Amino acid sequence: MAENDARVDAPLLTESRDAAGVARLTMNRPQAFNALSEGLLDALTDALRRLAADHSVRVVVLAGAGKAFCAGHDLREMRAAPSHDYYRRLFDRCTRMMMAIQQMPQPVIARVHGIATAAGCQLVAMCDLAVAADDARFAVSGVNLGLFCSTPGVALSRNLHRKQAMEMLLTGDMIDAASARERGLVNRVVPADGLDDEVARLAASICAKPAAAVAAGKGLFYRQLEMGIEAAYQLAGQTMACNMMDDAALEGVQAFIDKRSPSWRDS
Amino acid sequence: MAENDARVDAPLLTESRDAAGVARLTMNRPQAFNALSEGLLDALTDALRRLAADHSVRVVVLAGAGKAFCAGHDLREMRAAPSHDYYRRLFDRCTRMMMAIQQMPQPVIARVHGIATAAGCQLVAMCDLAVAADDARFAVSGVNLGLFCSTPGVALSRNLHRKQAMEMLLTGDMIDAASARERGLVNRVVPADGLDDEVARLAASICAKPAAAVAAGKGLFYRQLEMGIEAAYQLAGQTMACNMMDDAALEGVQAFIDKRSPSWRDS
Amino acid sequence: MAENDARVDAPLLTESRDAAGVARLTMNRPQAFNALSEGLLDALTDALRRLAADHSVRVVVLAGAGKAFCAGHDLREMRAAPSHDYYRRLFDRCTRMMMAIQQMPQPVIARVHGIATAAGCQLVAMCDLAVAADDARFAVSGVNLGLFCSTPGVALSRNLHRKQAMEMLLTGDMIDAASARERGLVNRVVPADGLDDEVARLAASICAKPAAAVAAGKGLFYRQLEMGIEAAYQLAGQTMACNMMDDAALEGVQAFIDKRSPSWRDS
Repeated sequence: MAENDARVDAPLLTESRDAAGVARLTMNRPQAFNALSEGLLDALTDALRRLAADHSVRVVVLAGAGKAFCAGHDLREMRAAPSHDYYRRLFDRCTRMMMAIQQMPQPVIARVHGIATAAGCQLVAMCDLAVAADDARFAVSGVNLGLFCSTPGVALSRNLHRKQAMEMLLTGDMIDAASARERGLVNRVVPADGLDDEVARLAASICAKPAAAVAAGKGLFYRQLEMGIEAAYQLAGQTMACNMMDDAALEGVQAFIDKRSPSWRDS
Repeated sequence: MAENDARVDAPLLTESRDAAGVARLTMNRPQAFNALSEGLLDALTDALRRLAADHSVRVVVLAGAGKAFCAGHDLREMRAAPSHDYYRRLFDRCTRMMMAIQQMPQPVIARVHGIATAAGCQLVAMCDLAVAADDARFAVSGVNLGLFCSTPGVALSRNLHRKQAMEMLLTGDMIDAASARERGLVNRVVPADGLDDEVARLAASICAKPAAAVAAGKGLFYRQLEMGIEAAYQLAGQTMACNMMDDAALEGVQAFIDKRSPSWRDS
Repeated sequence: MAENDARVDAPLLTESRDAAGVARLTMNRPQAFNALSEGLLDALTDALRRLAADHSVRVVVLAGAGKAFCAGHDLREMRAAPSHDYYRRLFDRCTRMMMAIQQMPQPVIARVHGIATAAGCQLVAMCDLAVAADDARFAVSGVNLGLFCSTPGVALSRNLHRKQAMEMLLTGDMIDAASARERGLVNRVVPADGLDDEVARLAASICAKPAAAVAAGKGLFYRQLEMGIEAAYQLAGQTMACNMMDDAALEGVQAFIDKRSPSWRDS
């Protein structure tokens, strides 16, 4: 699985894209439930930026090694350096990683098993798509330790209805995978032994589309969400007009008219 | 059904309001699954603006002739004129039509059967309310042709949770009517042979309310959605104070106090 | 129940916090279905502000005496003073009360039974959390009297998907408790005879968390909802860095590392 990695004990295992263009990042601190140490945060940010620039990569799958997807920040590391300035820089560093997911041109799919808690739950919320095993569980549990999950709440409140997000943030309680799907936190829930297949199916569906259309569409999607509807339409109309002039779109539309499959080189 | 139309082969059939004040627009390019040609876009915009100014119209029902609600843009027409400038103007024209729905004072109900894809799905999302046949299906399928549905995404992401919208946009997959209802894209789902009755019931419920209250309320609803909550409340409070001074509201409240039905002239 | 009140016929009964820190406000105009008269609005605003400043209060439960939670504005009072200026001041007064719920540091839980209509439904939407009896019903029914529920719509459209909110606003129809939960208006639904126990469980869960973390988290939650995601993360990161420097958080994180329960003085 991690054959592309120099070190199997690295905090992050990266697999170069497969033939279809799917790259996989595996958080690899299984003893710590893949807690986001500074080392893992930086490795994730670096890997996401590297993949963002790699035109052969069409989809990124983000997974966790061992029993959990991700349990949030590394509390031992955090507790060892109790200074306001350090915490500011730590949360900024975490935000940069989270935003790198949204800012990269390729869709990122969270492959969630076990638990996804605190910043681990935020990670699921920040991915473009998420597929969960049916025994996965989700919480923003910092409040149980006296640390309200304010940054995870930014992502969570942009996925779920506000009362549902608020309940999770105030109680720290776990929700199960079925609830996570109903509420909008994940897209699909499957039995644990079918998780990789379902992720592969979803990734393959995206790989079958032209890269330029997906990149332009993803970028526009998040920008327009923060605009009023008229400005959003103006920018979206520009994006579609550019998209329509791509060779891939012109060929795709022509193929539709001709009732044949499109002939694309890049996918 | 189309007795008010000069031409039964017109791209849009318009039925003047019935006794209750319900007008019906039927997209009428059944061989093309009601694809939004320039002719149909302009006919829709013109008809919506005309109805907007007609005080006898209380509700507009938007439907499609033939097997589908609407399959989006007319791809044959689009492919025939491959210039960036033309596409810009085409998407602007489409946006004007979509925004005319939101900007008009009367509620617009989408009556959805068959498929509603790409800009046809956007049309459902832009209507104030939507009722679907249980066999209706919805997709933003442009990405299958290499044309990401960026403008439909503006409307879709304001109806559904973002991961649900993103999945539809990235995969181009169909969702069924039950899913569309659960996710917020349509209000009600009924068996196909009960679709017109259900639309009529919903329309009748709105026609029973005073026109001025409905118009002021609809306008305020979309404006306040784009505001911070304090500014939203300030504008909403002004709107309600004006609304309360209407004769219809004063009579309605008095009737409530008197435990009788309100006596309104305009409804 | 109302042992802390000077007058049992007051429009609002206030119970000082219990041992755990839960205060209860009971709207007490049962003959009027707890309609929000000017007297009750002002009593609510005063009580919310007083509780906001009381550090011994950790959670506020808002309930209604008699058969209903709250039926909205007092229409008899409104009808008696038909002037635009009066209505402006009345809706501003109501908004101040509603915003006091969101602005206070402690979470407010709506305990909903019977009906919650018009501004009573708005009250549910504005509370941080809501627990409903399974026979509770919800409507924004002003439009039935010719008075579109524009201010309730501000809150409702920030809880539900827009088409679901629009349908309630245009039809004035009731939805039941199960629908309210599915759509995001309430968090939990329980049999009526278990309502107080469920509210108590939810309140107890919040009381078990440090007050400073809850207050900072609640305040940040609503502020960041109105920001773009980058600004939201910046403010949330600051909030978490400050939160992490609290003695309670440092102790909570240390206790987690030590695999023991945190020892907090304030909870």
